[in-house]
Amino acid sequence: MMDIIELSSKGISDVVSIIKKRSNTLNVRKSVEEIIENVKSSGDKALRGYTLDFDKVYLESFKIEKEEIEKAYNEGDLEFIEILKESIKNIEKYHQNQKKTSYIYQKELGVFMGQRLISMDSVAIYVPGGKAAYPSSVLMNAIPAKVAGVNEIVLVTPPDKNGEVNKQILVAAKLCGINKVYKLGGAQAIAALAYGTESIENVSMIVGPGNAFVAEAKRQVYGDVGIDMVAGPSEILIVADEKANPKYIAADLMSQAEHDELASSILVTTSKRLADKVNKEIEVQVKNLSRRNIIESSLINFGKIVICKSIEECIELANLIAPEHLELLIDSPIEYLEQVKNAGSVFLGEYTPEPIGDYFGGTNHVLPTGGTARFSSPLSVDTFVKKSSFLYYSQKAVVRDGEKIIRFANEEGLTAHANSVKVRLDNEEDK
Amino acid sequence: MMDIIELSSKGISDVVSIIKKRSNTLNVRKSVEEIIENVKSSGDKALRGYTLDFDKVYLESFKIEKEEIEKAYNEGDLEFIEILKESIKNIEKYHQNQKKTSYIYQKELGVFMGQRLISMDSVAIYVPGGKAAYPSSVLMNAIPAKVAGVNEIVLVTPPDKNGEVNKQILVAAKLCGINKVYKLGGAQAIAALAYGTESIENVSMIVGPGNAFVAEAKRQVYGDVGIDMVAGPSEILIVADEKANPKYIAADLMSQAEHDELASSILVTTSKRLADKVNKEIEVQVKNLSRRNIIESSLINFGKIVICKSIEECIELANLIAPEHLELLIDSPIEYLEQVKNAGSVFLGEYTPEPIGDYFGGTNHVLPTGGTARFSSPLSVDTFVKKSSFLYYSQKAVVRDGEKIIRFANEEGLTAHANSVKVRLDNEEDK
Repeated sequence: MMDIIELSSKGISDVVSIIKKRSNTLNVRKSVEEIIENVKSSGDKALRGYTLDFDKVYLESFKIEKEEIEKAYNEGDLEFIEILKESIKNIEKYHQNQKKTSYIYQKELGVFMGQRLISMDSVAIYVPGGKAAYPSSVLMNAIPAKVAGVNEIVLVTPPDKNGEVNKQILVAAKLCGINKVYKLGGAQAIAALAYGTESIENVSMIVGPGNAFVAEAKRQVYGDVGIDMVAGPSEILIVADEKANPKYIAADLMSQAEHDELASSILVTTSKRLADKVNKEIEVQVKNLSRRNIIESSLINFGKIVICKSIEECIELANLIAPEHLELLIDSPIEYLEQVKNAGSVFLGEYTPEPIGDYFGGTNHVLPTGGTARFSSPLSVDTFVKKSSFLYYSQKAVVRDGEKIIRFANEEGLTAHANSVKVRLDNEEDK
Repeated sequence: MMDIIELSSKGISDVVSIIKKRSNTLNVRKSVEEIIENVKSSGDKALRGYTLDFDKVYLESFKIEKEEIEKAYNEGDLEFIEILKESIKNIEKYHQNQKKTSYIYQKELGVFMGQRLISMDSVAIYVPGGKAAYPSSVLMNAIPAKVAGVNEIVLVTPPDKNGEVNKQILVAAKLCGINKVYKLGGAQAIAALAYGTESIENVSMIVGPGNAFVAEAKRQVYGDVGIDMVAGPSEILIVADEKANPKYIAADLMSQAEHDELASSILVTTSKRLADKVNKEIEVQVKNLSRRNIIESSLINFGKIVICKSIEECIELANLIAPEHLELLIDSPIEYLEQVKNAGSVFLGEYTPEPIGDYFGGTNHVLPTGGTARFSSPLSVDTFVKKSSFLYYSQKAVVRDGEKIIRFANEEGLTAHANSVKVRLDNEEDK
């Protein structure tokens, strides 16, 4: 099913460009601009209108009352709730390690400076509705915010045509300690969270996945409010040696492909024999999977098997592609980890299929896509903490350094900058 | 010169909106889109064309040879070079404190996971030309990148009509260890750095200030390359009690105002008497400042003095405004630092005028503007370091957790995710 190519210098850029090609052709910019403007000017009234238009339901109020959340929780499946709890514990423990501290750095003459870490005052998590309503999204976004110390965490998720929201989302919200939930979706939800309406308070930061409208709305409100990232379609790259199990590889490639027809699954291996076996395994396994059509479309269009000469070359190619997920199905994978420079999350060895990270292991599943792992990072506690620096100069220190600072400012032609130091030195002479 | 108002609940939103109102009216989106497309398709040829159009000079090659940098350094003023060196030392020491380490977190059954910190492979610093060619910009952007461990740091700065660039920029570049410098400016420089041309290699991250075209170009290439921030006009907010020196306050307000007619300088104080004195001091001091017209325009349009009832109320207002620079000219300023939640950088006490931080103290002067300090941070070592997570599960651990992960995936309707765990469990049964 997947196209097999031998790596050559010409081929490299073709392979690297695969994940870049998957742009969503929908041009939603204009519509989103209009929605944001309307929500800004008409507030709740605009929200009611868009909810009726897009979600096919009229809602007077968007808030989900505490009782409704409690009810969803009490009626929830106990076994699944236990799984959620264990997963939350794992995710919490992993993210606890990300907490950093403020610092102060002191110098002679009483000078000191430093950097304070301050958690954001309010954060909103967008959770898609319909078939893509994933409780794991709630966990992965809410837990780092909690660990960061964010006090106010709001969740928004679109209603169905009966005005109901996915019950699993409510259960996950309750388990993560979120008690402010709104039935609201699309670009209108993002606009409301960025600018506030009569019933919805604006927040400092909006995170979470969404469709093309939500992604574009996040892009447009960025600057007035913080955002996590503008996520594109998902991807996995598997590096495998000749001893790797083709069953596992086929399954893992398909687990990524089922997300989206635009998802990209790439196998990079030293073994042509393995490549052929993987293709055969896909044919066998895909028959039993409910999202077969999506998987086949994704693998045919954006899947690729690349044959390299060595594991080093495989990893070099992975670095050029900078995949969201990277699996290393090779001997002693930890030995090669240092060579991996660009990847959102790395899954080591044959017993770490990527879904363990999606649901349970503890690492975050919100990861940079589309090659952005070259310069951006997984969602983490840092996402919800901002920095603020401080500086203290004593009178004596100004006297010591003042003339140098004046000279520097004058070199840049900024005489008022120089003046602000000069008035302090002059005053000393007055005394 | 500055409008004085008493704070009332109605007045708060007026004051907060001042710094939001300063949008640059230039609509540059279309032109920038076109420039980027042209550079993408025609490479160096497009760069030569735009350089001729905008900088009024034809350049065959954009590279500044090492000899030219050495020459600028050798002909540089020795006293100023010494000041630059001392400033670099101070900035380096402050930023050394920001270095973080990778972590690993181990669990039972051999499971482990963690987060690696990886410095970006290549970074470009944009430095404006003409009157805004500031050597301090080179220092503030290059030093954190160096401390982060970035190997390849490129600097671009536009040529004048003789094809020359500011010599101080070259001196600063040399002192910061940057040996790749190009004469290139505007949106075309940003496009070249993001996508590469025949003579300019693309980088992973672009930082540095610039005019409206540069800022818009950075916004447009973001996602294909990392950027620091899209900076707006500068601002300062000074909180002062009745004992503060009006001379210092007037000087500090003007030092911000001289940057730009769109800069905003705000004094928030408990003392009406001080407010009047500051206005008088401005009239006196402004006469001797070379950028008097800019200062007056900025103070009249975007300057404001606000009278509050207490220092706590002053700081509350500062938090709502989230200024780039915050000066606390009050008794025991350190006692109030904890109350400051939103500010790029805080300057404590009457002997710490903001220009000390611009040039010499050690803290970074690249700071979030326009209220974005609510959710974003000063430029730091972190800007140049990305994170990558890793996860290892043992066979035993998959056997222990597998059914739970399968259940979780099935709850989300992702059967191929479930399958990727299932094939591992089935294989165990085969054995």
